Amino acid sequence: MAAAQQIGTPSSGLCSVGLDIGGTKILGALLGPDGEVLATVRLPTVRGAEGIVAGAAQAVREVVAQAGRTLDDVAGVGLGIPGIVDHAAGTVRHAVNLGVDGAELPLADLLSVALGGLPVVVENDLNVAAVGAAHILERSKPDRDRAAGSGVAPSEDLAFVALGTGLAAGLVLEGHLRRGVSGAAGEIGHVPVDPAGPECPCGQRGCLETIASGTALAAAWPARHGKPAPVELFEAAAAGDADAVAVKARFAEAVASAVRLLVLTVDVRHVVLGGGVSHLGEPLLEAVQEALREQAKSSPFLTSLALHERVVLAPQGVPVAAVGAAVLGRRG
Amino acid sequence: MAAAQQIGTPSSGLCSVGLDIGGTKILGALLGPDGEVLATVRLPTVRGAEGIVAGAAQAVREVVAQAGRTLDDVAGVGLGIPGIVDHAAGTVRHAVNLGVDGAELPLADLLSVALGGLPVVVENDLNVAAVGAAHILERSKPDRDRAAGSGVAPSEDLAFVALGTGLAAGLVLEGHLRRGVSGAAGEIGHVPVDPAGPECPCGQRGCLETIASGTALAAAWPARHGKPAPVELFEAAAAGDADAVAVKARFAEAVASAVRLLVLTVDVRHVVLGGGVSHLGEPLLEAVQEALREQAKSSPFLTSLALHERVVLAPQGVPVAAVGAAVLGRRG
Repeated sequence: MAAAQQIGTPSSGLCSVGLDIGGTKILGALLGPDGEVLATVRLPTVRGAEGIVAGAAQAVREVVAQAGRTLDDVAGVGLGIPGIVDHAAGTVRHAVNLGVDGAELPLADLLSVALGGLPVVVENDLNVAAVGAAHILERSKPDRDRAAGSGVAPSEDLAFVALGTGLAAGLVLEGHLRRGVSGAAGEIGHVPVDPAGPECPCGQRGCLETIASGTALAAAWPARHGKPAPVELFEAAAAGDADAVAVKARFAEAVASAVRLLVLTVDVRHVVLGGGVSHLGEPLLEAVQEALREQAKSSPFLTSLALHERVVLAPQGVPVAAVGAAVLGRRG
Repeated sequence: MAAAQQIGTPSSGLCSVGLDIGGTKILGALLGPDGEVLATVRLPTVRGAEGIVAGAAQAVREVVAQAGRTLDDVAGVGLGIPGIVDHAAGTVRHAVNLGVDGAELPLADLLSVALGGLPVVVENDLNVAAVGAAHILERSKPDRDRAAGSGVAPSEDLAFVALGTGLAAGLVLEGHLRRGVSGAAGEIGHVPVDPAGPECPCGQRGCLETIASGTALAAAWPARHGKPAPVELFEAAAAGDADAVAVKARFAEAVASAVRLLVLTVDVRHVVLGGGVSHLGEPLLEAVQEALREQAKSSPFLTSLALHERVVLAPQGVPVAAVGAAVLGRRG
C-alpha cells in the first residue's frame, strides 16, 4: 500500500506522473527516477466524470511527451483530488467542484484503463500536497544525500496547511503520510476555538475555519479593486488603513492558532503554509510569525516550542500537489 | 531506536520489565516473550535521584523474582516517568513530583548500572501509557493472531488521554509511538478553546486543560466528604443536585472537546480515557459519549466521524503504563 511508503523510497529507475485535479485546472508533473521534476503541464478541467478521466489521461500523455518519454518509462500515476477519497478502492465521492457528486467514481480504474493498464493511485488533495512539500523540502537540504544514505534518515515531518476556501491540513509524520482511520486527519478547520464565534457551515460554532481561511478573509475584507481579497487586504494594511491592519492581524492570529494546534497535537517539525492565500508570500509568513511570537510572549511553554521557526511558505512556482501525487504514484 | 519499533514486534524469547514511576508509587510489570503480563509489583516512591534509582532497581528485581525468573531472563527494561524526557539520551529533567528538579538525571545509565548492565530505555509517562493501552487492546482482539500473521496487521491506532492534574495525550499511530520532534506531541491541554476562558498556568488563556482536567474538576466541585472530587461530583449529579449536573455536563463536554480535537487532527481509531478521573469508570464514559453525541447533533460532518464509538476507558486493574514501558523495554 502506498500509504505506508516512506517518502523517498528509491524507485525502480522509471518515472512517475502526478496530477493535481482542481475545479478549474489540472496540474501535472513528471518525476524522474531520482525524484527530480522533468516536466510539468497545465490543462483546463472539464467537469463531470468523463471529462475528468479524459483530461487526466491527456495530462499524463502530454507531460510524458514533453520530456521526450513514453508511457513505457512510467511506473505509475498518482492523482490528488478534492472530495472523499477511498484510497484503497481508488474511488472518489462528493468531488462537488469537479461536477462529480453523489455516486462513487472509480477514478483509479477508469484512468488506468485509459492509460493502457498503468497503475493509478488516488489520494486526497491535502495529502498529496503534504507529500509534495515533504519531497521538495527533503531535496532542498544540503545534507540530503548523507541522510538518505545512512538508513536512519531523519525523514520529513510536516503539516501542509491549505488556506483556501476552507482550512485543512495534510500530515507527513516521520516520512509517512498520515491519513487517519477515516480519512479525517488534518481536518483542523472544524475544531471550535471560540464558543462565541460564528456558526460554521459544518453545523458547529466558532470553528477555526470561520476565521482562518480564504473565505473568512474575503468575508472580512471583500475585494473592491479587482485583485484577490488577501492582496487588497495586505496592501491596505501596508498603506496604514487601521481597519485593514486589524483584519490582517486577526487573520494572522487565527492562522497562528492553527499552527499552534498542530504542534501541540502532533509536534511536527515544519508547518507549511499553502493554498490560495499563501500566494501572498513573505508578507503572510511574516504576519503569521509575528502572531506566533505574540502568542508565545506570555507563555514560556509556547516559547520553548519555537513555533515561529517551524512555519514556512509552500514552495512557489512548483506544482507541489502534483509532485506529491507523483511521489505516491511511484511503484518502487 | 525503540521509537520506530512496531508495537508487538516479536521479541527474542526473553522477558522485559516496565516501570511506571509516579510521585507516590512505582508500578512494575514483567512481560513474557509473547507479551503476556507475568507479574506486577507496587512500591512506594522515594523522592530524589538516589531514591528513584534504588527504588526502580528494587522494583525490577522484585517483579522478576515474583515470577520465579532472574535478570538473565530479561532482555531490557523500560521506564515511564513524568517530566521532560530525552529518550535518545535516556535522561529526565524537571520531574518535579519526584524531587528531581533542575539538573538532568541520566536515569537510563544509572539504572542500567544498578542492574548489571541491562539495557534501559526512558520514556515520557503519557507515551508509555499509550503504548500499554495499544498493547492491551491489540491482545484483547479475537482476531489478533490472524491479523499478526498476515503481515499487514491493522496495528493499533489510538490516543491515550490522561485526565489528571493536567490534560495530555500519548499517541500510537498505526502501531508507532508518535513523540513529535520536540517531545510535545499530545500536549492538547494547552490548546486554547475559549478566548474568554480563565488564565492557564502555562501563560495562555482558555486552555482546554482549564476545563478538562482533574484539577479543573476539583476546583469546580471540591471534595467535601472525603472521597475523590470526581466521585463526589458524579454521586451528587446522580442524586439530582442541579449544580452537580451542570458541572458534570460541562466537564464531560470539555473531555468530549478533547476527543474531537484529537480525531479532527490525527483521526485515531480509539481515544482511551485514562488518568485519575478515569477511575470513575462507566459513568464517565457514558457522560463523555453523551456529550459527543450532543456535539454531533448539529453537524452531519461530526456525526459521520462517530466520535462516541471511538472512546473507551483505559483498562482497569492493569498497570497500563508499566506494561507499555515493558513493551518499549523489549529488545527483540
